Amino acid sequence: MQAKMISDLKTPAFLVDLPILQRNIGEMAKRAQRLGVRLRPHVKTHKTAEIARLQAPGPDAAITVSTLAEARFYKDKGFQDITYACPLDPNKIPEAAQLGRDMRNFNLLLDHPDTFAALESYGRGNKIRFAVFLKVDCGYHRAGVDPEKSESYLLAEQIHNSRYVEFRGILTHAGHSYHCRGAEAIAAVARQEREIMAGFAEGLKKRGIEPIVVSVGSTPTAVHARSWEGVSEIRPGNYVFFDKFMADIGACAFEDCAATVLVSVVGHYPERNQILVDGGALAFSKDPGAVHVDPEAGFGAVTGHPDLRFKSISQELGVITSASRMPFESFPIGGRMRIVPNHSCLAAALFPVYHVVEGSRVVDAWVPHRGW
Amino acid sequence: MQAKMISDLKTPAFLVDLPILQRNIGEMAKRAQRLGVRLRPHVKTHKTAEIARLQAPGPDAAITVSTLAEARFYKDKGFQDITYACPLDPNKIPEAAQLGRDMRNFNLLLDHPDTFAALESYGRGNKIRFAVFLKVDCGYHRAGVDPEKSESYLLAEQIHNSRYVEFRGILTHAGHSYHCRGAEAIAAVARQEREIMAGFAEGLKKRGIEPIVVSVGSTPTAVHARSWEGVSEIRPGNYVFFDKFMADIGACAFEDCAATVLVSVVGHYPERNQILVDGGALAFSKDPGAVHVDPEAGFGAVTGHPDLRFKSISQELGVITSASRMPFESFPIGGRMRIVPNHSCLAAALFPVYHVVEGSRVVDAWVPHRGW
Repeated sequence: MQAKMISDLKTPAFLVDLPILQRNIGEMAKRAQRLGVRLRPHVKTHKTAEIARLQAPGPDAAITVSTLAEARFYKDKGFQDITYACPLDPNKIPEAAQLGRDMRNFNLLLDHPDTFAALESYGRGNKIRFAVFLKVDCGYHRAGVDPEKSESYLLAEQIHNSRYVEFRGILTHAGHSYHCRGAEAIAAVARQEREIMAGFAEGLKKRGIEPIVVSVGSTPTAVHARSWEGVSEIRPGNYVFFDKFMADIGACAFEDCAATVLVSVVGHYPERNQILVDGGALAFSKDPGAVHVDPEAGFGAVTGHPDLRFKSISQELGVITSASRMPFESFPIGGRMRIVPNHSCLAAALFPVYHVVEGSRVVDAWVPHRGW
Repeated sequence: MQAKMISDLKTPAFLVDLPILQRNIGEMAKRAQRLGVRLRPHVKTHKTAEIARLQAPGPDAAITVSTLAEARFYKDKGFQDITYACPLDPNKIPEAAQLGRDMRNFNLLLDHPDTFAALESYGRGNKIRFAVFLKVDCGYHRAGVDPEKSESYLLAEQIHNSRYVEFRGILTHAGHSYHCRGAEAIAAVARQEREIMAGFAEGLKKRGIEPIVVSVGSTPTAVHARSWEGVSEIRPGNYVFFDKFMADIGACAFEDCAATVLVSVVGHYPERNQILVDGGALAFSKDPGAVHVDPEAGFGAVTGHPDLRFKSISQELGVITSASRMPFESFPIGGRMRIVPNHSCLAAALFPVYHVVEGSRVVDAWVPHRGW
């Protein structure tokens, strides 16, 4: 039987380059080991069992998820230690309770006294104990308590003293590392992330709250951190695929991008130096990319053709322009391109299957989980 | 049995307000009838059988799709007259041929001689005749032949004279109407769209190419056109739901938006006047909206609260800000909001089910088709 080739695939198709994926996963495992922290990878980027097993092998595998649907999916795949790293919606407490019963360790996240009160009330009424992380704001200003405020210590103490909620630790996400430009700037955010979290943990220790898990991590800071002293675990996720955004801010090299979208050329417009392809917003999402690094970032990068720009997208079509003369002869009607998306997490979520490739061969097909 | 209520739903959830949907569909049918054109609605916005049947009732139902997967889905649901309105990728000709065999009328689109040659070659080899529209550029400059150029007439003649390809007509999409601001500007684009297409049809007639179908339409121009003289059919799609973008450019009123995303409040941040909700880029996509009308458009509009702004989104979380003091008391932790997305087509595509609502009751659940 002849091996299936990339050229046999229908477009648009989501391709995962297996050797690059494995290298990215290996490098992050080494970084965590070198700096003495546990790796609890986020799996929201891909939502497949296969990649999660590569990221978190072994019986003690610990992962991070972004939805309860992911938690259920990975529990069914045998994962027994999961952190659901979004502030909990109190309406979802019964679902979360069931997940807590069904696995060895299921951690929740909160940053508001009302969420804590709702958990306590449910725990008391249903004889169940929840494992909880206090979400901390280390500068991203999206969610989390302010580690400078006395109310934050008060909430930690309330959790610590509860009979129905177990205080597992403190957790942050340095999402502001995405606004950086270059390794030095990212390393500075990693230092801030570490210092704020280690300092808050120290403050909690003085109040008798110890030992706790100190959980940090975004892909950029996980790549460029030089020390994780005082930190227990890191939770990067995007690093399995990386993407144009990560390459643009300096969190990876362009050659580290493991995910590409395969598209076909469906139009030539020499009068405006443009090519039309059959991948649009339903194949790439519409993340504008790292516009703070490159205002003309476009929606992705055509592999092997740095002069080309993925200028605009509508639902099913994308427009490619060129800074120099468009090489139409390299991309005839029906020809193919591989495009690194701006944001691999959002692009991946749009595809029913990932085609796993080595060189030009398709060696596997992985099916992601979706929904909530 | 108690009726299911919106408050019973898990978040994020995609809601379709049935009375508004029906009104939007009825209004567009009346517009088409009043101006004497056939309505061949685009179904890509929703991709459900239920809404397509409301848009295109009766045995002569004709619809427009954006993917071959949609074409197969609607064929299986009994639709027998479908236009696949994206320039054809030659790699997809065998699939398109099968669809042509399986239904009464399946129309394809092209704007390049190489696509025509590939269709002719396949038709000759497989004894099949394709029905084809020539895609025309009426000013959007995304795809289509230039109606001013002699090559465009030449390609039309080649199609017209082919034994394996039947020249069905000319088709355009005035996507530049999305860049308008207000009814007058949109009406002007509709006039341009009509004049260019009617003029091109007239030129073809002089060359003996007649009768042909003249197909136009975007939702904004379909709403505001005052005449479709010389036009056979219109293909709006977004009008079933409308969205914040359409309201912002003046293609509809905000009250016409039939689709909302239901989210739960998961965080309060009084120090920065912000609320965090459990709907992000995987519930809304990341369409920036009509920034030419409102540079601060955000990612959607919170119903009933015009002061609120959907400022930013990450994968599963969204940040709501307010121009005045945030009404935290109206949105307690675990409370709900309904948000009109910027771009309903892209948001809808992210949900496995649409909850159909009338007032606060959930009266049905519709499952969209996905993929390619």
